[in-house]
Amino acid sequence: MVTLDFEKSNGIVPAIVQDYKSGRVLMVAYMNAHAWDLTLQTGEAHYWSRSRREIWHKGETSGNIQIVKEIFADCDHDAILLKVKRQGDAACHLGYENCIHNRVEKNGDITIIGERIFDPERVYGK
Amino acid sequence: MVTLDFEKSNGIVPAIVQDYKSGRVLMVAYMNAHAWDLTLQTGEAHYWSRSRREIWHKGETSGNIQIVKEIFADCDHDAILLKVKRQGDAACHLGYENCIHNRVEKNGDITIIGERIFDPERVYGK
Repeated sequence: MVTLDFEKSNGIVPAIVQDYKSGRVLMVAYMNAHAWDLTLQTGEAHYWSRSRREIWHKGETSGNIQIVKEIFADCDHDAILLKVKRQGDAACHLGYENCIHNRVEKNGDITIIGERIFDPERVYGK
Repeated sequence: MVTLDFEKSNGIVPAIVQDYKSGRVLMVAYMNAHAWDLTLQTGEAHYWSRSRREIWHKGETSGNIQIVKEIFADCDHDAILLKVKRQGDAACHLGYENCIHNRVEKNGDITIIGERIFDPERVYGK
């Protein structure tokens, strides 16, 4: 039975989220022990929101739920990789397909890769 | 010019390391501002070792240097993705091809994926 090392980072571990088909890295989020248990129990990704300080069932508001296909833990058991199937088209709260959409160029400038799939103001009412 | 948010996690950001060809996620490490600068300047991955509390030029001891092909920052600028070309065969200090080699099964058990490429005792003298 795997035991994750939640102590090293004050009760959380980073969770790398990768599309199980394309291999694209979609986002980085964090889990505490409760989010980890919920993810294992439900098969849907649950995280710990560091800003809101609450459990975050990914996609509950936006519909962009992540169905967990495979889970990996790293050598030190202090990071995990989720291979997921997305229910919707977007992973990012800004409306992009994935959160990792800023390519850093040689000169340090950023180029945004990918298009906005939804307008976050409409979905989240912000 | 990209400015990373090092404040959210006490001076570091997680760096997801992905093989630029296979798309396999190799490891998760951390960078502080100095490691980030060194990575941009040299084109080789530098991290901050949280356990040793020092800059860690990946591969300096083992030869498994990571040549940075592309860098991405996420939506909040508090996580980065490095697409790398590996100089050697292994990414993991335990001698495996990558650090993320523990598959978590439905019952919570772990299956180790991949074979050991080197013996860490020989390389690191531990």
